[in-house]
Amino acid sequence: MIRFESDYLEGAHPKILEKLTQTNFEQSAGYGVDAHCERARELIKKACEAPDAYVQFLVGGTQANTTVIASVLKPYEGVLSAVSGHINVHETGAVEATGHKVLGLESDNGKITAKQIKDAYLAHINDPTHEHMVKPVLVYISQPTENGTLYSKSELEAIRSVCDETGLYLFVDGARCGYGLKSENNDVFLPDLARLADVFYIGGTKVGALFGEAVVFTNRVLARDFRYMIKRHGGMLAKGRLLGIQFETLFEDGLYFEISEHAMSLAIKIKYALLDMGIKMLFDSPTNQQFPIFENSVYEKLSEKYSFSFWCTPDENSTAVRICTSWATKEENVDALLDDIRKALGK
Amino acid sequence: MIRFESDYLEGAHPKILEKLTQTNFEQSAGYGVDAHCERARELIKKACEAPDAYVQFLVGGTQANTTVIASVLKPYEGVLSAVSGHINVHETGAVEATGHKVLGLESDNGKITAKQIKDAYLAHINDPTHEHMVKPVLVYISQPTENGTLYSKSELEAIRSVCDETGLYLFVDGARCGYGLKSENNDVFLPDLARLADVFYIGGTKVGALFGEAVVFTNRVLARDFRYMIKRHGGMLAKGRLLGIQFETLFEDGLYFEISEHAMSLAIKIKYALLDMGIKMLFDSPTNQQFPIFENSVYEKLSEKYSFSFWCTPDENSTAVRICTSWATKEENVDALLDDIRKALGK
Amino acid sequence: MIRFESDYLEGAHPKILEKLTQTNFEQSAGYGVDAHCERARELIKKACEAPDAYVQFLVGGTQANTTVIASVLKPYEGVLSAVSGHINVHETGAVEATGHKVLGLESDNGKITAKQIKDAYLAHINDPTHEHMVKPVLVYISQPTENGTLYSKSELEAIRSVCDETGLYLFVDGARCGYGLKSENNDVFLPDLARLADVFYIGGTKVGALFGEAVVFTNRVLARDFRYMIKRHGGMLAKGRLLGIQFETLFEDGLYFEISEHAMSLAIKIKYALLDMGIKMLFDSPTNQQFPIFENSVYEKLSEKYSFSFWCTPDENSTAVRICTSWATKEENVDALLDDIRKALGK
Amino acid sequence: MIRFESDYLEGAHPKILEKLTQTNFEQSAGYGVDAHCERARELIKKACEAPDAYVQFLVGGTQANTTVIASVLKPYEGVLSAVSGHINVHETGAVEATGHKVLGLESDNGKITAKQIKDAYLAHINDPTHEHMVKPVLVYISQPTENGTLYSKSELEAIRSVCDETGLYLFVDGARCGYGLKSENNDVFLPDLARLADVFYIGGTKVGALFGEAVVFTNRVLARDFRYMIKRHGGMLAKGRLLGIQFETLFEDGLYFEISEHAMSLAIKIKYALLDMGIKMLFDSPTNQQFPIFENSVYEKLSEKYSFSFWCTPDENSTAVRICTSWATKEENVDALLDDIRKALGK
Repeated sequence: MIRFESDYLEGAHPKILEKLTQTNFEQSAGYGVDAHCERARELIKKACEAPDAYVQFLVGGTQANTTVIASVLKPYEGVLSAVSGHINVHETGAVEATGHKVLGLESDNGKITAKQIKDAYLAHINDPTHEHMVKPVLVYISQPTENGTLYSKSELEAIRSVCDETGLYLFVDGARCGYGLKSENNDVFLPDLARLADVFYIGGTKVGALFGEAVVFTNRVLARDFRYMIKRHGGMLAKGRLLGIQFETLFEDGLYFEISEHAMSLAIKIKYALLDMGIKMLFDSPTNQQFPIFENSVYEKLSEKYSFSFWCTPDENSTAVRICTSWATKEENVDALLDDIRKALGK
Repeated sequence: MIRFESDYLEGAHPKILEKLTQTNFEQSAGYGVDAHCERARELIKKACEAPDAYVQFLVGGTQANTTVIASVLKPYEGVLSAVSGHINVHETGAVEATGHKVLGLESDNGKITAKQIKDAYLAHINDPTHEHMVKPVLVYISQPTENGTLYSKSELEAIRSVCDETGLYLFVDGARCGYGLKSENNDVFLPDLARLADVFYIGGTKVGALFGEAVVFTNRVLARDFRYMIKRHGGMLAKGRLLGIQFETLFEDGLYFEISEHAMSLAIKIKYALLDMGIKMLFDSPTNQQFPIFENSVYEKLSEKYSFSFWCTPDENSTAVRICTSWATKEENVDALLDDIRKALGK
Repeated sequence: MIRFESDYLEGAHPKILEKLTQTNFEQSAGYGVDAHCERARELIKKACEAPDAYVQFLVGGTQANTTVIASVLKPYEGVLSAVSGHINVHETGAVEATGHKVLGLESDNGKITAKQIKDAYLAHINDPTHEHMVKPVLVYISQPTENGTLYSKSELEAIRSVCDETGLYLFVDGARCGYGLKSENNDVFLPDLARLADVFYIGGTKVGALFGEAVVFTNRVLARDFRYMIKRHGGMLAKGRLLGIQFETLFEDGLYFEISEHAMSLAIKIKYALLDMGIKMLFDSPTNQQFPIFENSVYEKLSEKYSFSFWCTPDENSTAVRICTSWATKEENVDALLDDIRKALGK
Repeated sequence: MIRFESDYLEGAHPKILEKLTQTNFEQSAGYGVDAHCERARELIKKACEAPDAYVQFLVGGTQANTTVIASVLKPYEGVLSAVSGHINVHETGAVEATGHKVLGLESDNGKITAKQIKDAYLAHINDPTHEHMVKPVLVYISQPTENGTLYSKSELEAIRSVCDETGLYLFVDGARCGYGLKSENNDVFLPDLARLADVFYIGGTKVGALFGEAVVFTNRVLARDFRYMIKRHGGMLAKGRLLGIQFETLFEDGLYFEISEHAMSLAIKIKYALLDMGIKMLFDSPTNQQFPIFENSVYEKLSEKYSFSFWCTPDENSTAVRICTSWATKEENVDALLDDIRKALGK
C-alpha cells in the first residue's frame, strides 16, 4: 500500500532526527526556556522580519488553535471562522471546551471574505439585543485552508483593514503554511503574515517535523501570560527543547522551504496530470492537498494499491478524495500513481 | 406608548401576587423542597399525565436550557438545534460556557425535521474521523419556536422515532408552551410532550408568572443529581417556594390555560385582521407572536404610539416586527392598534 | 414548628409585595433597563456615596459571586478566599464551572488577613515555577462572613492597601451586608465598602426582598461588558423590573436599614441571653447569625418545637447550630425560644 | 554545570532514537491507530497482566491527568487529592479549566490515607446541604508522590477497599512509576496497579522517552469514548506512532525497568551518602527524587557547579532542594557531586 492520505504519514525529515540524536545528551532546562528554543525563536523572528514578535512552541495544531483562541477572548466573545474551518469541524469541540462559540461563516472553498467579517461585526453591533449574543472578536482563517485554497495578499489586506476598523483580531492557522509559501502564484510570505495577523503559527507537524507548531504573536498585548495558558491547556512539553531543536533545524538553513518546495512540485505534477486526464477537482487547490473526483470504479481499483482520504460523494457514481504530498513523498510513487490512474481510466 | 414588543412587559397575573401575599408569612425550608413546590410538582405531573416524572423549578429560560443541556451531555457531546434556536443565538453562548457545541441545522421557519436529525446522526457515525468531531446526542427544539411556529403531533412523533432509533435524547423548550397548547389546530398537549420528550419545560415567565420555568424529566435517568447541577449553575433560588407558589396558582384551577387562551384569542384577532388588510407575515405563526411586514412609512407612523420588537428588513422599503400578546394584553389596546394600522394604510 | 434556621424562611417585607402589586400593570422593557431599575441604581449609588459606580441586579448570591469572579479573572487566574468561604464550600463548584480555581486561605473565624493575602501573592510571584500555578488575582471576602464575623474598617483598609501594592482586586460578598451595617461596634458602612472594594454586592434575598442582589462596581474597568456575562450565566431576569422595584423599595426610605436593625436587635437579645445562661458560642458573631453550642439533650428537646441549622458536633456530647434572625423574626418567638432554652437547661 | 534538578534534562534513551530513526520512512495511519501503537498496547497489557485493559497514549502528564479526570467526572463531581498533589498545585488550574474542583486533603509527605478518603466521602453524604457542595467521586494519588514517597501494597489495598465501599474511583498518576517499581522495599508492581486502580498511567517522559504517558483503564466503563476526550483536549498526536514506537521500545525487552533500576541505584547511592554525612532530608524518599536540606553556605557553594530544584527554606539558615536521577544520570557525576558535598561540609 502506497499512502497519499495525509502529510503526516512518516516520521520526520532525517536532518531533524540527526539533530535530535546529536544533541541527545545535552542537559537543558525544561518547558521551552532552553538555548535551542531561544535560537529557534530568533531564527523564526528573522524569517518573519518581526524582531519584536513573541514566539512559543506547541506540540500540535488543535492545541495551538485552542490555546491561542482561549488566550485572546473574554468569556462571552466568539471567533469567526468558515463553517468548514478546522476549529469548527475537526477538533471535537476543543474551542467550545474553553467556553467559546465558533461563529460560522458560509464558504464554498474554505475562505471567508473581508465583507463577510464586516457584515458579521455590524450585524452584532447593530442588533439591539446584542448583549444576548456572542460578540465576534477574533477572526480565524487558515493559510492554506482545509480545502487547499490560499488567500492572496490583497484578500488578507482587506481582512486586516476590516480588523483595524472594527477592533477585531486576526489569527492565521498556518498548520500547512510552508506549502502555501511555495505555491505557484502565492504572494503571501512570512513577513506578510507577521505584518497582517495579530497572531499566527508556522506548522511543523505537516512540514517535516515529528511534531510542533511555532506560534508567533506580533500583537504582543495578546501574548500576555501566554505560557500560563500553555500549561493550563496541557501543552507545555517537559522536554521543550525537542521543539526548539526541530524548529532550529527547519529554519537554520532553509530546510522548511526546501521541504515545502519538494512537496509542492509533486503536488503540481499530480494536479496538472489529473486535469490533463480530464479529472475534475472538488476544489481548485494550488497547494499540497489535491481533491480529485474519481468515478467509483476507478476509485475502487486505485484503492487496492493506494490510500487516500475519503472526502465526499459528489454524486452516486463518484467519490472525491484528498491526495497529499509532503517532504517524504517520493517521485517514483507519484509516477506510479499517475500511471495507475491512466490505466484505470483506460488511457 | 402601548407596548406589544414581548410577552413579559407586565408583572404577573394578579392571582399570583395575591397568593404570594397570602402566604408571605409562612415559614418554609429553602431551595425548593417546601410544601408549595411539592404540591406544584404534583399538579404538573397530573396535567402531564406523567405520575413518574421528575419536576424542578428554575427561574428563567436560559438557565433552564443550559442546566438541562449540561446535565444530559458528556463533554464531547453536542446538541442539535435549528440555526435560529434560542440556544444558538440569544443566550450569549451560555451552552458553550458549559463546554458544549450547538450543532446548527438550517431552518426557514424555526422548525427542524426528523430527517435532518437522522442525517446529522448518520453523517457523524459514518465519518471515519468522527472522533475528531462533536458527537450529536441531544435534540433541542422549541414548542412554539422562536418564529411562533408549532410542531404537529406527527412531526414530533417522527422526531421521537428517530431518537429511539439512534439513541438521541429529545429536549423541548416550552418557554411559551401555553400559547402553543391553545393555538387553533394544535394537536400537541402536555401529555404528548411528556410522552415524546425525554425532558421539557413549561414556561411561566412568558405565561403569567413573575418568573419561573418548570422542568419535567420523563426520562428519569437524565435527572440524576439534577439539583447539584441547578446549584452549580446559580439557579437554585433560596426562597424556592416562590416558584412553587406560582406554579401552584397556575395549575390548581387551570389558570395557565385560561391565560394562554386569552392571549391566543387576541393574537388570532390581530393575525386575521392584518391578513385581511393585505399585510404579509414573515412567518405563518399560529401562536402569540405575530410577525407582520410593514411598509417603512407605516412602521414609523405606528412607532409613535406603539412599541414592537424590530425583527429584520426584508427589503429596503419594509420592516418586519414582532407583536406579542400575553395574559395582560387588553382587547381595547388590540382594537386601537388595528384601527391605527388601518388608518396608516389609508383603509 | 418555629423556624430559626435561616434568614430566608418567609416571603418578603410587606412593602415590597405592595409595591409589586401597585406597579403590576405597568408595561416596561425587559432585562433590567427599565425606569425602576434606573431609579434603584441611583438610590444605591447615593447610599454608597459612589456617583460613578456601575450597578446591576442579579437574582441570587451564587449567581452574583460566579458572574463577578468570571468577569474579573483571566482563565489562568484564581480567587483567594477563606477555606470556609461560600464560594469554596457551598456553591457546588460554580466558580470552578467557569474554569477558575479557588485558592483557599486558612481561617478560624471566616476572616482572612491582609498578611495572608500578601503572603499568597509573594509565594506565587517568587516561585520560579509560577507559570505552572494558578495566579492569585482576586480577593474574595464576605461581610459579614459565613460565621457571622465582621471585618473592621482598619482590617479592610489593610487588605485594600495590600491590593493596591500588588495589583490584586477586592470583591466583597455582601449577601448579609445589611446585618453587618447595623451590628453594634460596626465601623464599615456602605460608602466604606464602595471606597475599599473594587466590586461588592448588597444582598436583598436575606434582607427583606423576595430575591435579588445589587452588584456595585466602583472599579468600572472591571464592569466592562458585564451584562453579556450576566446573560451568559443565565442571570438576566426577563422581568428585570422586579429587581428594580424591590431595591427601590428597600432604599427609597431606609427600609433596608430598618429591616437590618430589627433583625440585629433580636440577634443581640438572643446572643446575650444565651451567654448569660452560660452557653458557649462556636464563633463570636456580632451579626444576625448566632452559633450556640447546646448539650445534645438540650438540642433534642428544643428540636421538638424549633428548627435550627445543624452546624457541627464540637464533641460527642454537644451540637453547634445556627440561629438566624431576619426582617420577619417576631420578638414573641424569640422570647418563647429563650424561655424554652432556660427550661431545657433547668434554669 | 552538572544538572540534577529534574529527570527530564536530556533527550531520550538512545534505543528510542535508534528505533525512531529506523522506522522513520514507514508510512502509517495517524492518531494512534497504527501497528506500533497496537503492539505497544499489547506489551503494556502483558506487563500489567491485564489483557482486557484499554490503553491510550498521551504526550504529557498534565494532559493525561486532565483528560482522565474530565472523562471520569460529571460536571458537579470533584477529585480528592493531597493538597500537595500535582493537579492541585502545578498544572495552572488545568483540572479547573475542565470545570472540576480539586478537593484537597492534608498530607505531610504527599500521601493520603484510606481513612481520609472515607471521611471525606462520609462528610459529603452526611451533610444535609450536600447538593450545595462538590461531590467527591474520584481519588487521585501519585505513585511515587511529588515528594518521592511510595504507597505500600497494603495502603493501596485499603484505599481500593474504601473505593469499593463508597463507589469512588481510583486514579493513579504514575508519571514516575518506573522509579517506584524499582525502589528498595517496594511491593507494588504493575499488575498491582492494574488490579487496584480504575485507571492509571505509566510515565515515559521522566523514564527514558522523549515524551509520552501510557494511560491504562482497567475499568473499561470509564474509558468509553476516551479518544473523543483526547482530541477535545488537544492531546491527539497526529503522528501517534511516535508514542507507539517509544513504548514499544521501552517494553519489548525490559528497557523501562533497566532504566528505572539504573536511576534508582544512583538515587540510593546519593541518599545513603548524604545521610552518612549527617545531612537531613525533607522527606524520607525511597525513589529517584531526594530532598536534602543544605546549610545555605553549602548550597551556595554547590550551586556554582551543580543545579538542583529549589524546594523551600525550612529555616533561614538552610535550603531544601530536589536532586533527581534518571536513565541519563552518569555515575561519575554522582561521585563528583558527593565529593563536592563532602568538601563543602569540610569532611
